[in-house]
Amino acid sequence: MTLPVFDQTAIEKAVTTRLVLDTVRDALIAHAEGRTSVPPPLHMAFPEADGDCHVKAGWITGAADFTVKIATGFYGNPVLGLPSNHGLVCVVSARTGQMRALLDDGGLLTAWRTAAAGALITHAMARPDATTLAVFGTGEQARLQATWLAELRTIGTVLVHGRSPHKANALCEQLHARGLDARPAAPQEAAAADMVITTTPATSPVLDATHVREGAHVTGIGTDMPHKNELPPALFHRARLIATDDHTQCLDHGDFGHAVRAGATGQHSDTAAGDLLKGPVDRPEAAITLADLTGVGALDAALASAALDQLLH
Amino acid sequence: MTLPVFDQTAIEKAVTTRLVLDTVRDALIAHAEGRTSVPPPLHMAFPEADGDCHVKAGWITGAADFTVKIATGFYGNPVLGLPSNHGLVCVVSARTGQMRALLDDGGLLTAWRTAAAGALITHAMARPDATTLAVFGTGEQARLQATWLAELRTIGTVLVHGRSPHKANALCEQLHARGLDARPAAPQEAAAADMVITTTPATSPVLDATHVREGAHVTGIGTDMPHKNELPPALFHRARLIATDDHTQCLDHGDFGHAVRAGATGQHSDTAAGDLLKGPVDRPEAAITLADLTGVGALDAALASAALDQLLH
Repeated sequence: MTLPVFDQTAIEKAVTTRLVLDTVRDALIAHAEGRTSVPPPLHMAFPEADGDCHVKAGWITGAADFTVKIATGFYGNPVLGLPSNHGLVCVVSARTGQMRALLDDGGLLTAWRTAAAGALITHAMARPDATTLAVFGTGEQARLQATWLAELRTIGTVLVHGRSPHKANALCEQLHARGLDARPAAPQEAAAADMVITTTPATSPVLDATHVREGAHVTGIGTDMPHKNELPPALFHRARLIATDDHTQCLDHGDFGHAVRAGATGQHSDTAAGDLLKGPVDRPEAAITLADLTGVGALDAALASAALDQLLH
Repeated sequence: MTLPVFDQTAIEKAVTTRLVLDTVRDALIAHAEGRTSVPPPLHMAFPEADGDCHVKAGWITGAADFTVKIATGFYGNPVLGLPSNHGLVCVVSARTGQMRALLDDGGLLTAWRTAAAGALITHAMARPDATTLAVFGTGEQARLQATWLAELRTIGTVLVHGRSPHKANALCEQLHARGLDARPAAPQEAAAADMVITTTPATSPVLDATHVREGAHVTGIGTDMPHKNELPPALFHRARLIATDDHTQCLDHGDFGHAVRAGATGQHSDTAAGDLLKGPVDRPEAAITLADLTGVGALDAALASAALDQLLH
């Protein structure tokens, strides 16, 4: 028996945005309800090659499959004409331990579950009449967050802030091609949008808390390591509702943790993102709401399993 | 580019016993010299299916590849007509993080590196004129330890002790087929052999320390978890030379750790197995020598990489 290997093209053909959104929503709810198993990840460093490897596993309790995801980042690769990131998702039966398949997805599923989580929680927490979206960052996640949120609600204008004007323009053109009105914006204007999503690898806050308006919602998805930081503690101090995708993880290496350590908010001031996805969010009209997403391994499991079901049928 | 997947049959064809022995010897020496990187493993449990999953990674510092090994054990599988253990080795470039290949080896490489480590250290530590070998256990490792040690030195007789006389007889027949003189033996007789290798999943000692003769060598390879135990602390107390494949690991969950906690030997009484493989071992003629092997992740990396080089050429 040969182990099936599916590549990025096959996965793109088989999986719809709707399937990803539904799967990630259910998985975030399961995680909020404690119905997931996510062991501490395995980590290796290759300092001479400026590289590292993370192995993450996840399982939605009771689901037929779990996954083991290997992801590498070798930051000298671009000089060699290679992408920095490589990865592989192994789907394993949680009933027999047999390897079901390998998804040679080039990081696609991780990008999708990150985009889906951001779009879902932003849609759930933002005011129903919020229409202006600002994205900080100009990479793949900035594009995905805007286009996927547009699947969930009408977006009037997308304001794009990036350090490189060239990249900000390029992203605006990509968004135009998808039917969205988009233009570059300075950080102060972007921070004043109805909905703000930060998607950068920043190590210090990308916006000023005083520029964020009452009634706005802000989602940070870029802070996934202790040295990273996108959202200022002062913004957490102003927020009336704070969502985290994983309390412990956000406390350890999310923007939420920075804010707690700075004394700007309490250690238990957060609500599970999955709980907010269950129904209408009770938000005071003029409040600032925040979501800190650090990425939950159980989402990988749920999405890979759902993708595999499509690929095998 | 499709990721190459090699199965057990392809690996068996491409790799010789000599290559495994040479590779494992070099890797044990590298490990003794601190030239390996082995992060703490990742572990998941699936209690309802009586299953678990371990993910282990390893790297010989500076080598071109590292490996990530996924291994599952689902102990209800035999009822379903399936093997209990499944696994997969992913070979990754330590220069670029690219996935080089997958070895769908059914645990073969782990079995081989375990067998090679046991045979190499037993040969190095046993008296040059030792000829009688006893194996405790009747599984794959019992067979491999005997046949691979026979590649390194002449064995007069193999004494086989197993709880099941049926399985002990079956192993003797397999060893006969490979040209070895073998017969079942009671534990007391087996423990008195020149060379003893224990290969069981026992949770209490399989032999009596008083039955082991002066001048004998004993290697334990079965104790790989804290609740397992093959060799009695009293045997460590009698030993004049104790080898461990990994000091920290053997202290944590090897027979050596049981002996140290029982006060039978000192916490630093052991020598790195790899150091003993470098040259002739200086052993007093009448001494008892011991080796406790718990399995080193860096050996997986070295062996998978060597196997892949053969498979690709």
